Amino acid sequence: MKKDLSFIYATQKDLCTLYGIGALLGWDERTHMPRKAVSARADQQKLIHDLIYEKMTADKLLDALHRLREKTLSGKDNLVVKELYKDVIKARRIPQAFCQELVKTVVMAQATWEAARYKNNFALFRKHLEKVVELKRQEAQFIDPDKKPYAALLNEFEEGMTPEKLTDLFDYLKKELITIVDHIKGTPRYSGQTPVRVVMKEDRQKAVIGEILKKMRMPSNRTSCDVSTHPFSIKLSENDVRITTRYLDPLDSFFAAIHEAGHALYELGISKKYCNTVLFYAASVGLHESQSRFWENMIAKNKSFWSGYFPQFARYVDAGFTPESFYYAVNQVRPSFIRVNADEVTYGLHIILRYEIERDLIDGTLSVADAKDAWNCKTKQYFNLIPSSDNEGILQDVHWAGGAFGYFPTYTIGSIYASQIYNHLEKTLPDFDRMIRVQNFNPVLAWLRANIHSKGKSMPADDIIAQACGSGLNPKEFVDYLRAKFIPIYER
Amino acid sequence: MKKDLSFIYATQKDLCTLYGIGALLGWDERTHMPRKAVSARADQQKLIHDLIYEKMTADKLLDALHRLREKTLSGKDNLVVKELYKDVIKARRIPQAFCQELVKTVVMAQATWEAARYKNNFALFRKHLEKVVELKRQEAQFIDPDKKPYAALLNEFEEGMTPEKLTDLFDYLKKELITIVDHIKGTPRYSGQTPVRVVMKEDRQKAVIGEILKKMRMPSNRTSCDVSTHPFSIKLSENDVRITTRYLDPLDSFFAAIHEAGHALYELGISKKYCNTVLFYAASVGLHESQSRFWENMIAKNKSFWSGYFPQFARYVDAGFTPESFYYAVNQVRPSFIRVNADEVTYGLHIILRYEIERDLIDGTLSVADAKDAWNCKTKQYFNLIPSSDNEGILQDVHWAGGAFGYFPTYTIGSIYASQIYNHLEKTLPDFDRMIRVQNFNPVLAWLRANIHSKGKSMPADDIIAQACGSGLNPKEFVDYLRAKFIPIYER
Repeated sequence: MKKDLSFIYATQKDLCTLYGIGALLGWDERTHMPRKAVSARADQQKLIHDLIYEKMTADKLLDALHRLREKTLSGKDNLVVKELYKDVIKARRIPQAFCQELVKTVVMAQATWEAARYKNNFALFRKHLEKVVELKRQEAQFIDPDKKPYAALLNEFEEGMTPEKLTDLFDYLKKELITIVDHIKGTPRYSGQTPVRVVMKEDRQKAVIGEILKKMRMPSNRTSCDVSTHPFSIKLSENDVRITTRYLDPLDSFFAAIHEAGHALYELGISKKYCNTVLFYAASVGLHESQSRFWENMIAKNKSFWSGYFPQFARYVDAGFTPESFYYAVNQVRPSFIRVNADEVTYGLHIILRYEIERDLIDGTLSVADAKDAWNCKTKQYFNLIPSSDNEGILQDVHWAGGAFGYFPTYTIGSIYASQIYNHLEKTLPDFDRMIRVQNFNPVLAWLRANIHSKGKSMPADDIIAQACGSGLNPKEFVDYLRAKFIPIYER
Repeated sequence: MKKDLSFIYATQKDLCTLYGIGALLGWDERTHMPRKAVSARADQQKLIHDLIYEKMTADKLLDALHRLREKTLSGKDNLVVKELYKDVIKARRIPQAFCQELVKTVVMAQATWEAARYKNNFALFRKHLEKVVELKRQEAQFIDPDKKPYAALLNEFEEGMTPEKLTDLFDYLKKELITIVDHIKGTPRYSGQTPVRVVMKEDRQKAVIGEILKKMRMPSNRTSCDVSTHPFSIKLSENDVRITTRYLDPLDSFFAAIHEAGHALYELGISKKYCNTVLFYAASVGLHESQSRFWENMIAKNKSFWSGYFPQFARYVDAGFTPESFYYAVNQVRPSFIRVNADEVTYGLHIILRYEIERDLIDGTLSVADAKDAWNCKTKQYFNLIPSSDNEGILQDVHWAGGAFGYFPTYTIGSIYASQIYNHLEKTLPDFDRMIRVQNFNPVLAWLRANIHSKGKSMPADDIIAQACGSGLNPKEFVDYLRAKFIPIYER
């Protein structure tokens, strides 16, 4: 047993080291890599992936796990064996040749998606999307032949979540969100609102972001903040979790950096005792997203926050704003076409629309040929808007080109979890509002570390939230949170 | 035979891919990596090194090479087999456990060197240097038991070069350099010279460097220029060769960037037909250094260059300079303690001093305990100066702490080659001076590509120079070049 255990720990350490190398290759590709290096980079990535596949599917590893599963193990060993076994079984079910075909297909599909976006023409992308959908249906069969295909894919991002549960949850949420939006649209404030304007030079944006990250306790010796087209965060090792932002619009760069820092703090806060094991990762994608959204929406778009923080922004903001009116301005609700620009209320509707379409595409009840009509039709239903072009509609997100079916729902699962955390902290942390106003985030971060971050993958995400906040995924809390925040903004 | 050939080419491709990944790990470590990530980075590097070692020492590879060496092969295949066989034999001679001990020892030695520098006290570093010297002597025995130890180490950096040849060459050069310096020190210009001052903000330095790199035809889609404490250049793949500089002093950042760009252009110019083989690398370290020094000293410190380029610098330069006097100012000769700040004339003396000491350390005729005295004594002899502290003397360079014995001579070999290239181009390229004045470097780069860069490792460095310039390593040409450049500066 001792020999088996030390073998699986050594394997996990090698796997984590390889994941870290792969992460560096990916980070660099999106930040600093010269453009023409792309093909050699693909070779480098492939070599690392092949090594991971080899290690993961080695018979010796499966044999060791089989033997260990027969034994009574201590807490951590038991969890490690359970999680690693799942990963190994999954890796062994998907043939390597299939993986390679899938990777090649999504690389081509993403390039074609970009070209189609450039021409604003979904028809150019359709065939590629069909191929991706086809392969993802096959992949779902490999992963779990007993599940409906979408259920298998969804489970990869949010373990334990099912399309049945999600459809119920989203049907409820859709109704509530549309009600809130309709209510807001009926207020005089809604028709009078105009966008906020902030003009700030890049080096000033960098300085502002540097200060807020410091207040969030992003450790400068364990993180970095670079520039990329699309902001992201990535873990390279236990003391190396990086974020990016982009310096176009000052509010965009500000909120994006805070969002990504929320992700990074999660990874940085996972208990060191899980380092170099399969438990040293987030419990789910939805829980990961809850951390970024919590910091971005619940903290950095909070009324108390802006009441204390506005003076630092004031000289870059159009005249006439007060801390309060600026808070209103950064929280404007407005139905629109583009998900990434959406406010907290309508964001969920964008997700539900995508969820319904991707579920039906993967389960075979909607064809790619009909997907554009479905998109436009749902946009009319949920937003009362009609996309004037494919870029405003079905072509706006890269996720499907990349094969990430089942990913979209995690954004809203994250929002729901974040609202539960916020509701809980507001009730239980003494002096919460004052702390946010003076930007003293230490107690909040300490709570997140103790109750969310440190757990890593040692518990299911939903159990972590239930233990921390009193109940598992609870869309009603999210609706209550939205009402409590946004109705006063529009009925003031 | 076909099977063996395709196996060795596949192995070389994997090796190149692994070298590229290792290069990225190293580049990142010196540019962007958060400080605390160092231990996980060491694990990542070790994993890649182990994979390289495994591939390189696989019996299957040696067997294939043995079989291929019996065959008559075409030009490229023949060269590939010859070079790869040398690498394989060498890798197999050095036991992996020894490699690991050496790596651990130099990591510790480098850290101790930094600490010793901080305290300006060689005694703190002595024991570590002794250990490194001891291991490098052993390594030399592994590499080639028939050679004297220093000869074996020198051959690693500059294949074909021997300590016998080098001692002769350096004895000649030492005499000539001291004569030139003495001559210069006797001129009235020498005693009257004062350092040039340039004050330029970092973003302006970046812009200036961006422009000059563009003129050097550094392709922006195949390169990048980042910041690091010590400037360096590194190849990650055929279309990814990066340089760094540091933005402290504007002339330092300018010349450092040009120096590193010279290295990068070499790597970028190696013929694509050698890509993913053992020939896709520089012919020697000395030849590599010739490229950086050519651009830095022969081009960017050239009189014609500054006569055309000075206006772009003029407003950042202390009043009173003309293009001509600025050229004099950036070419001041002055015996000093510190190698990296040395001018073209005294630089060689710094190298000769280090060569003589490291040769004797490795061959066992000088003990580490006596090295400091030897250093100070030679500094008196060659520069007529006495180091006032260890940082001004034996502690100034990291090379020995890193185990790079045999590296220093390549700097001067590079200077000699560079002077031969310069003398040749000045004679043979029509309109050479005018082109340099208007910063049209295209014909120079085209010549370098055709005659130096493209060859990769397909020929010995000295043969490349002989073919391109009419003779192999020729210190007399270097002395002539220095006399022709510096005597007029001081006798004007």
